[in-house]
Amino acid sequence: MLHNDTIVAAATPTGGAIAIVRIEGPKAFAVCDSIFRSDRGTTASEAKGYTLMHGNIYDHQRRIDDVLVTIFRSPHSYTGGDMVEIACHGSAYITGEIIRLAIENGARNATAGEFTMRAFLGGKMDLSQAEAVADVIAADSKAALTMADTQMRGCYSEALSSLRGELLNLASLLELELDFGEEDVEFANRGQLTTLLQRIESEIDHLAGSFAVGNAVKKGIAVAIVGEPNVGKSTLLNRLVGDERAMVSDIAGTTRDTIEECVNIGGVVFRFIDTAGVHDTGDRLENMGIERTHKALAGAQIVVEMFESVGEDIVALSEEQKVIRLLNKIDLQQEVEVPDGWIGISAKEGVGIEKLTQRLGECVDTSEIMSGSAVVSNGRHYEALLRAKDALQRAKEGLCAGLSTDLVAQDIREVLEHIGAITGEVTNSEILGQIFSRFCIGK
Amino acid sequence: MLHNDTIVAAATPTGGAIAIVRIEGPKAFAVCDSIFRSDRGTTASEAKGYTLMHGNIYDHQRRIDDVLVTIFRSPHSYTGGDMVEIACHGSAYITGEIIRLAIENGARNATAGEFTMRAFLGGKMDLSQAEAVADVIAADSKAALTMADTQMRGCYSEALSSLRGELLNLASLLELELDFGEEDVEFANRGQLTTLLQRIESEIDHLAGSFAVGNAVKKGIAVAIVGEPNVGKSTLLNRLVGDERAMVSDIAGTTRDTIEECVNIGGVVFRFIDTAGVHDTGDRLENMGIERTHKALAGAQIVVEMFESVGEDIVALSEEQKVIRLLNKIDLQQEVEVPDGWIGISAKEGVGIEKLTQRLGECVDTSEIMSGSAVVSNGRHYEALLRAKDALQRAKEGLCAGLSTDLVAQDIREVLEHIGAITGEVTNSEILGQIFSRFCIGK
Repeated sequence: MLHNDTIVAAATPTGGAIAIVRIEGPKAFAVCDSIFRSDRGTTASEAKGYTLMHGNIYDHQRRIDDVLVTIFRSPHSYTGGDMVEIACHGSAYITGEIIRLAIENGARNATAGEFTMRAFLGGKMDLSQAEAVADVIAADSKAALTMADTQMRGCYSEALSSLRGELLNLASLLELELDFGEEDVEFANRGQLTTLLQRIESEIDHLAGSFAVGNAVKKGIAVAIVGEPNVGKSTLLNRLVGDERAMVSDIAGTTRDTIEECVNIGGVVFRFIDTAGVHDTGDRLENMGIERTHKALAGAQIVVEMFESVGEDIVALSEEQKVIRLLNKIDLQQEVEVPDGWIGISAKEGVGIEKLTQRLGECVDTSEIMSGSAVVSNGRHYEALLRAKDALQRAKEGLCAGLSTDLVAQDIREVLEHIGAITGEVTNSEILGQIFSRFCIGK
Repeated sequence: MLHNDTIVAAATPTGGAIAIVRIEGPKAFAVCDSIFRSDRGTTASEAKGYTLMHGNIYDHQRRIDDVLVTIFRSPHSYTGGDMVEIACHGSAYITGEIIRLAIENGARNATAGEFTMRAFLGGKMDLSQAEAVADVIAADSKAALTMADTQMRGCYSEALSSLRGELLNLASLLELELDFGEEDVEFANRGQLTTLLQRIESEIDHLAGSFAVGNAVKKGIAVAIVGEPNVGKSTLLNRLVGDERAMVSDIAGTTRDTIEECVNIGGVVFRFIDTAGVHDTGDRLENMGIERTHKALAGAQIVVEMFESVGEDIVALSEEQKVIRLLNKIDLQQEVEVPDGWIGISAKEGVGIEKLTQRLGECVDTSEIMSGSAVVSNGRHYEALLRAKDALQRAKEGLCAGLSTDLVAQDIREVLEHIGAITGEVTNSEILGQIFSRFCIGK
């Protein structure tokens, strides 16, 4: 796909030593030539790819800044098109002036994510890889980066493409049967087809199953800390975070709202949620806090229950949730018996915290992520997988029930479409617009 | 001056599409080689200057990010030393990992402004040019940028150097006389010396005199808007700024605090200060506001006085302050007679605003700045000039009074020292530390 217009945007925020302005498109070099004069008198149009030029940006006779210009010649650029990057002093005014001059000389403002969209449309990467670029930039931990990086490198796309390829093969045989219409031939072996559909289903199940961990790692594993008032929840949170984020007092009910703090443990970000003490109260404000506790609780992957003495669970847990039970304030007790599976801690004195973080790490299996396997972390992909599975089950049932070939073929086409939507083999401009509008401008 | 250690820092803020990490020093290429693997297998140590390499940053076997590495070979770099710039995805995590890896492989964290300090110590620029780098980055208008750019290009240093050179010539003749001690020779023509000192004094006066405009342009021209309560000061400010920044109401005394808004008029930034209405009141809060008005007034280069009907000045003005008198609400009056020199406006209807901005532009003479002449905008330079002038006057008086050569020579040495301090020909590490600590890290 060719782009006949030239776009410009800042690729860095201002406020640092350097800022970078990107110009991309068929007129990228021409635009650069009309605002840039290199020290040696050579122009961007003449320069080789992957080289730098030092010189100055001029607005007619007025010098704007001295800059370094990097030349990327099609197809050896991020987007695949001609591109220049202008590195100037990191001032908002200078960046603005360079963009203004580029626009006066034939470029237009890039929209959010437009460079990456061009890279996708230019065939430099598929859609799931393009989406991973945003995840790489947002990655805040080793696990999140590894996962985004795996996706950006296309490992995930490969898994999907090979599935899709096999299915496409059989689907075309089915379509061939339809072409022969009334002749009642059977090119596609029904047994083979059923086996393939089963294999694809289990692959889809595997991928969709990885979404729980993938999404949690991307967003941070939600850990709710619950317990009776004054059991030491805020003290534990402070201990984990290492600062005085949560207000701590001796008065029961100090924590009125849920407080969230992110802590990187072993390369994974955990979002700890300190919740209002769970107890009966007439106080309206406190009751609102308790309501939020229940919401936070429902969304948590891990629930840390804190006790002062061994007791029953104080909250209802769902099946998927993992629970860690803590016996706090063991420093104040003479003879402490910590039940099997529980951890005895003193949040105040920092006793047992290491055991807790170790247990938390065990709750999240990142082995698949860290080994570079395909893991789904994108909600759009997850949804497409679920839809593919739906259609796939209909196809299987149709085959089983001996439905007419055209109905089965229709379901299989739908499976192909949903899988193809992930990598962008099947897509439309509206979906693309939605995906790239979430990017920042300049990417 | 050689640096035997290698420094690393991010040169851009994170949060954009791209981030840049700079490594500079004798081991810059070696550090890069231990964390970067290029696609083509070439190393930074082998690469030519001013070229790019695409490849990946690795932490042992773990890939961190795919990056572009730019090679700068001494002396063709910002600092004059060997340098690499690593352009990675704009994530704080990735940037942090690359810096960590660089440090593990022999670099250390750069301090604020250390790259520019190295450029100064390496002779790539003098001290006033180095200081101008920070001004270029902070520039927020055409005039501020032109001024900083002029200084960065060394026009200002040239003016000082030529003064200093002439003085140094004569000073050495004086010193020669001292060497001959009792022989009572006179190498330095006293008449010539006096003439030169007078010329230098007038040059210093000219430069020091430019500080008022230079500093105001750099910081934004302070304009105080004053007037009786409810005369329409906030409405005017809103009109100038073009949005609803100041709270506007019909109740007298609505504006309790001074409000500042920056507006770029004709390439110069004006800082408009809306002041609390000046009137007698028992209200303590309002009185505090009025006190601040007087402070804001004292610091303003321009005072805009607003009236509803022609009257006397309502505030005391200093000699240096320029005043613009406005007759507001002319839309509500039947027959308006606007006195000579006054401007009739309607802040509410936007009448006369253009005349006002034109008059404001006339109050600031930026012709010297825009023509690229040497203009002083740096407080440190201004101070040094005043001290140089002090010593110079002592030298002149000494010559006039026929004081002994060694006393006059001493004063002239002091003049040379103060002028030399501006460009860094005479300096010490403490002053350097102070200057560069105000830079951001990575510059």
